[in-house]
Amino acid sequence: MVFMLEEIYEQPEAVATAVQQGDAAIRKLVKELKQQDVRYVVIAARGTSDNAATYAKYLIEIVCGIPVALAAPSVFTLYEAKLRLERCLVLGISQSGQAEDVVQTLASARAGGALTACITNVADSPLANQSEYVLLCHAGVERAVAATKTYTTTLALIALLAGHWAEETSLLNELREIPKHMHQVLPLDSQIEAAVERYRYIQECAVLARGINQATALEAALKMTETSYLVAKPYSGADFLHGPIAMIHEGFPTFLYAPDGRAYPFMWELARKLQERAAEMIIFARSPELLEFARCPIRIPIDIDERLSPLLYIVAGQLWACRLALARGYNPDSPRGLNKVTVTR
Amino acid sequence: MVFMLEEIYEQPEAVATAVQQGDAAIRKLVKELKQQDVRYVVIAARGTSDNAATYAKYLIEIVCGIPVALAAPSVFTLYEAKLRLERCLVLGISQSGQAEDVVQTLASARAGGALTACITNVADSPLANQSEYVLLCHAGVERAVAATKTYTTTLALIALLAGHWAEETSLLNELREIPKHMHQVLPLDSQIEAAVERYRYIQECAVLARGINQATALEAALKMTETSYLVAKPYSGADFLHGPIAMIHEGFPTFLYAPDGRAYPFMWELARKLQERAAEMIIFARSPELLEFARCPIRIPIDIDERLSPLLYIVAGQLWACRLALARGYNPDSPRGLNKVTVTR
Repeated sequence: MVFMLEEIYEQPEAVATAVQQGDAAIRKLVKELKQQDVRYVVIAARGTSDNAATYAKYLIEIVCGIPVALAAPSVFTLYEAKLRLERCLVLGISQSGQAEDVVQTLASARAGGALTACITNVADSPLANQSEYVLLCHAGVERAVAATKTYTTTLALIALLAGHWAEETSLLNELREIPKHMHQVLPLDSQIEAAVERYRYIQECAVLARGINQATALEAALKMTETSYLVAKPYSGADFLHGPIAMIHEGFPTFLYAPDGRAYPFMWELARKLQERAAEMIIFARSPELLEFARCPIRIPIDIDERLSPLLYIVAGQLWACRLALARGYNPDSPRGLNKVTVTR
Repeated sequence: MVFMLEEIYEQPEAVATAVQQGDAAIRKLVKELKQQDVRYVVIAARGTSDNAATYAKYLIEIVCGIPVALAAPSVFTLYEAKLRLERCLVLGISQSGQAEDVVQTLASARAGGALTACITNVADSPLANQSEYVLLCHAGVERAVAATKTYTTTLALIALLAGHWAEETSLLNELREIPKHMHQVLPLDSQIEAAVERYRYIQECAVLARGINQATALEAALKMTETSYLVAKPYSGADFLHGPIAMIHEGFPTFLYAPDGRAYPFMWELARKLQERAAEMIIFARSPELLEFARCPIRIPIDIDERLSPLLYIVAGQLWACRLALARGYNPDSPRGLNKVTVTR
């Protein structure tokens, strides 16, 4: 078994551990956030961690009512901007803790008056050493280059942070159910393994979601790009209508991630528009009504708070990327030209 | 002549008018920003306007030291989040002023205590009516669906705002030179018209930049997607190294936008890595040393402050998109399935 698949399967346990072990550190951080009356958040991250940052933006804004910006690290590293960051939390995310530009962003932010924290899987890393508060993924060593369990554990820590910050017990309770739900998603593996055969020779595709699953579209597309060398373009369904839908022609492979919730009606409408253009749809959803549009329906049989659905839906996306890479004869553990640690300055 | 090309050529005059006519309104807004001691900015936009928002994020952070967040409109429209936005400027950007979700974001922001402003080309539009401060593009009617002159005039207004806010006279002075510089970029049209022939049958490509020209990569890719139905993937060069570079194989068409400046050394290094993978590079740059990597070098013969370079480099990108669409036999004025006004909720 390839590491990527092994690590996908480890996620229920990894997320349970992250939530349990992270609780105390997050309560401490939240106490400080309230004491300092923090009014906005800036997140610095790259690659998969940046997709987790997108989830954090939506979740913290929706649940906590605090505006969140995703940092452009080059503002700090290339342009050496000095930002005024009083009453701001600057959060760095990097599984390896070695992303130099993220570390440098945190250093500049601290100088600008910000409170700093990080999410990382490596306790003794440059990023952890630079941060006042350290939230650990506790995911164990990740051996595949394509990150999976460090992504979902990062999402879990973000949900834990938002839940505690907003004191929303119901969100925290549902978060603790995620490992159980993940165990229901993993058995989709055999269906997905069979389904990817049809897509052995695709070279390009679009990956669509709306609202909080924007992160899922970004991450599912990145996993396919990394492991199958596909040109997979992720979009917010709304942005997609503002131009890129023009590229859709008959048979164009289009992935939709659309759990029940606030974004659902939009996604249903989008699927209808794609059907008019005869796009080939691969749909990850619970609703049978939406799945009817799909040439390839992947039913996620779980009733979940939409705000936590990215933790489950990406598992199906990871399985899809991994199985597709294997079907194409690639080793998803060692994509050409990628290393586990990418250093950008 | 197609409208798109006509409007590309109108840009020197349009930008000159925008800068001249916009000055008074922007001075008034900046006075208010200082009076309220505004500490951060949130920008709401879609499509091309969202690419302008990316430029605004970089420029305002670099020049003014004020953190900028790009809004996720669905946070307001689908999830009805109530954000705390005291001492925050919320800026809506929409050429038509009709983007409903942008209008709704501004309405929510105002309720949350924010100061509101907009950039639009239509004075009597829902967005203008919703905003306390209105900055007009003064670009004249834009008839092509693919926005060009409303994009560059929006960029000019953003630079004017940043320059006045930071009281940086040198930036303002150089901004007034932009129309003159644009007149030097437009004659590249004939070279570009010949160059696109080779790319008549490409189906996918990557579009790369770093730092403040991130906006240029996004917008150049969007123009090609809209008018030539290409799968054009824009990336920050840094994010690109964190995964997507895996998709590059021999002959893969890769566009680089790389003026002189802080991002230049990174882009040179990136070109070297792409050469190792035998990518086919189309490079827009001034430096002969970088252009040497290109199969198709487009030399932009202008010495310009990197912070304003996105106003010039996108003109070459627009010409490229328009000429490529024509070479492929498409009408860039009426892309299939797109309307000038896209309404998303």
